[in-house]
Amino acid sequence: MIAELTVEATDGAARTGRLRLARGEVRTPAFMPVATRGTVRSVATHEVAALSTPSGTRFEVLLANTYHLMLRPGAEVVERLGGLGPFAGWPGPTLTDSGGYQVFSLSPRVSDQGAEFASTYDGTRILLTPELAVAEQERIGADVQMVLDVCPALPAPIDELRRAVDTTEAWARRALAVRTRTEDQSIFGIVQGGVDPELRREAAERTVALGFDGYALGGLSVGESRSEMLPAIDAAVAALPTDRPRYLMGVGDPVSLVEAVARGVDLFDCVLPTRLARHGTLLTDRGRLNIGRAEFTADTAPIQDGCGCPTCSRYERGYLRHLVAVDEQSAATLCTLHNLWWVLRLVERVRESIVAGTLGELRREVAAGWEAGPPA
Amino acid sequence: MIAELTVEATDGAARTGRLRLARGEVRTPAFMPVATRGTVRSVATHEVAALSTPSGTRFEVLLANTYHLMLRPGAEVVERLGGLGPFAGWPGPTLTDSGGYQVFSLSPRVSDQGAEFASTYDGTRILLTPELAVAEQERIGADVQMVLDVCPALPAPIDELRRAVDTTEAWARRALAVRTRTEDQSIFGIVQGGVDPELRREAAERTVALGFDGYALGGLSVGESRSEMLPAIDAAVAALPTDRPRYLMGVGDPVSLVEAVARGVDLFDCVLPTRLARHGTLLTDRGRLNIGRAEFTADTAPIQDGCGCPTCSRYERGYLRHLVAVDEQSAATLCTLHNLWWVLRLVERVRESIVAGTLGELRREVAAGWEAGPPA
Repeated sequence: MIAELTVEATDGAARTGRLRLARGEVRTPAFMPVATRGTVRSVATHEVAALSTPSGTRFEVLLANTYHLMLRPGAEVVERLGGLGPFAGWPGPTLTDSGGYQVFSLSPRVSDQGAEFASTYDGTRILLTPELAVAEQERIGADVQMVLDVCPALPAPIDELRRAVDTTEAWARRALAVRTRTEDQSIFGIVQGGVDPELRREAAERTVALGFDGYALGGLSVGESRSEMLPAIDAAVAALPTDRPRYLMGVGDPVSLVEAVARGVDLFDCVLPTRLARHGTLLTDRGRLNIGRAEFTADTAPIQDGCGCPTCSRYERGYLRHLVAVDEQSAATLCTLHNLWWVLRLVERVRESIVAGTLGELRREVAAGWEAGPPA
Repeated sequence: MIAELTVEATDGAARTGRLRLARGEVRTPAFMPVATRGTVRSVATHEVAALSTPSGTRFEVLLANTYHLMLRPGAEVVERLGGLGPFAGWPGPTLTDSGGYQVFSLSPRVSDQGAEFASTYDGTRILLTPELAVAEQERIGADVQMVLDVCPALPAPIDELRRAVDTTEAWARRALAVRTRTEDQSIFGIVQGGVDPELRREAAERTVALGFDGYALGGLSVGESRSEMLPAIDAAVAALPTDRPRYLMGVGDPVSLVEAVARGVDLFDCVLPTRLARHGTLLTDRGRLNIGRAEFTADTAPIQDGCGCPTCSRYERGYLRHLVAVDEQSAATLCTLHNLWWVLRLVERVRESIVAGTLGELRREVAAGWEAGPPA
C-alpha cells in the first residue's frame, strides 16, 4: 500500500514517523517547499534538495501546483519530460495541489460542475472540474494528488461554509470515481468547514467515509486568527483515522506549525518562508528580521549566530543588506535559502522533541520567540 | 613583488602561466566574472566560486565596479566589512574597474579635472577624479585597482581619440602620484587609442613609460568590428613589456577571447555570458542557443551533450525552456551557471592548447562554431 504511515513516537497528540510514498520515504512531521510552477521561487531545485542540517535532515517532498502546470507548460509536457520529479530535477517524492487554492485566490465562477477561470497567462477560459483535476494530476504524476475542493475566504457565513463542504464532498466522490493511476500515486481528500468546529468535524467524517490515502485540512490561514484556526484543527483531527497522514494546507508560520503538530498534523506546506525572503524578511529564533534596514549596513554578524544554512556560513548581514538595497536577484536567493533552512531545522527540532517527549518546551520556546504573532 | 607573472608555456605570441596577486595565484589566461555591485548577477558568489571543471579549474579572480560600490553601499562600508573579497564572500583575488567604463556608458561631463556624473541611484552629482578613484579603490581593497581612464565610443574622430589618450595619461600620472596602498594592491594602467594602430602603439608606450604593475587595453568592444579590434590589440601588445600581465577589458565573446589570447593577452572580463543568460541565450560549442524557443518545449536533452556544468548535469532543455517562458528567477540562475561554466572550460582549453602548441586548432574550431560572429 502506498501512503503508508508508520508512527514511531508520540508526545500527546503529536506524532513522528515515516510516510511511505511511491518514490521514497518521508519523515514526518514534514514541511514541503512550494514549487508552484515547478521551481521554488528564487532558487534552483538542486539548491533546495541540497539543504541539510548537520544531522542530515533534508526536505523530502516537493509541492507543485496543478493549475499553473496545466497552463504552463501543460500537463502533457510535464508527462513527456518524465513527470513532476524528473521534470523539476527533484530526486524524491512530490505532491500536487489540485488547483483548489486558486478557487480561493483567483475567485473563479464556481458551479456544481467545477470552477471556471480566466487563465492568469492569456485570459483563456478554463473549466476546472474534479475530473479534469484528476486527469491533469495523473499526467503530472506526483506521488500524491489532491482532490479539487472549494476553499472560501474567511470570515464567511455558515451557509457558504456548508455549501463549500457539500460541493467539496461531491467533487471528492467524482474524483475517486474517475481516478485510474493507483499503482504509484496516492490521493488525499480535503476537509473544509471554515472555523466552525462542528462543521469541521462533520466534514472530516464525510471525507473519511469516502476513503482516501490521506486527509488534508483546507481553507485555513485564509483570514482567520490563530485562536480561531486551532479549534477547527482539533475538531477535524479528532474525526480522522490515526493510521493515515494528515496534511494542513498552506500553513507554515512557526507558531502555527508547532501548534498544529501538537494536535496531530503530519504534513505542511506554505509559501511564507520563500515569500518573506523575497522581501528581505528573515526567520530567526527570535522572530522576523528585516535585513533591508539601515542598521545592518555595516553589520558583520551572520543573520543568526550558529545558523548552519548556506547563507549564514558564508555571508554577513552587511552584504545581504547591500544586495537587498540594490535589488540584486542573489538577495532573494540567499534569503530564501536561509528561511527554508530555518524551517527545516525547526521541523527537525519538532521531530526530536516528540521523540524526547519535550514538545511542550519547544512550543513555549517558539511562542516566546514569535510572540508578536505570525509574520505577514 | 605583487602582480608577478610567470610564463610557463607559449604558443606563438600566446602565453600561459601564473600571476601572483596579494591574495592568491591566478592561472592565465584567465576570465574574471563580473560582479558589478559585489555579486555576479543572478547567482550567489559561492555558486560562482564552486564552478569547476573535471580537472579542477575554477575562476580565480572576481571583478567589481568602483563606480557602483562607491555609491552603494559606499567604499567605507565595503572597507568596514573587510574589503571586497570578504564583503562578497569571494575567497580569492579581486579586481576593481575604476569607473572608467561608466565614462563610456553613462556619458558624464568629462573635463581635465575628472568625470562628473549624476548618480544612477539618486541623481546626486559626483565628480569622479583620478585621485578619488584611487582613494575609493584603496578602501574597497581589491588585489588590483585600475586607473580612471577616458573611454570613447567608437567610431570616434581621431582628435577625440587622441584627447582621450592624453587625458588618460594625465590621469594615470595623477593616480600614481596619490596612490598609497602598495603593499597588497597592484595598479594597472589603461591603454586607449581606439582602433588606430599607430595611436594604440603610442598610447601603450606612454602608459608603459609611467610604470604600472600591469597593462590593460581599454576602449575596445565599444562599437567596432572584430577585424578593426584585432589590429589595435596587436599594435598595443607589441609595445607592452613581456613580463607584465595584459588585460583586455570588457571583451569576452568566444572568438575575440581566443584571438586576443593568440595575440598575447592574459586577462579578460565581460558581462556577455551573464547578460545573455538572463535572456535565455546559452553558449555552446556550436554557437548560441536560445532556450526560450518553442522547439525546446519537450526536449529531454541537456543544453549541450557532455557539458559538465551544474545545470546540464541536472536539468533538461524542456524544463529550462519552461522556467524562461514563465519568467522564473531560477531560469536566469541556471542559464548563468551554464554560460560561466562554458567560458571557464573554454579558458581551460585555451591554456591546455598553449601548452600543447595547438592553439591554432582551437582558434579554427571556435571560429567554426561561432561563425555567425559574436553574440549580441
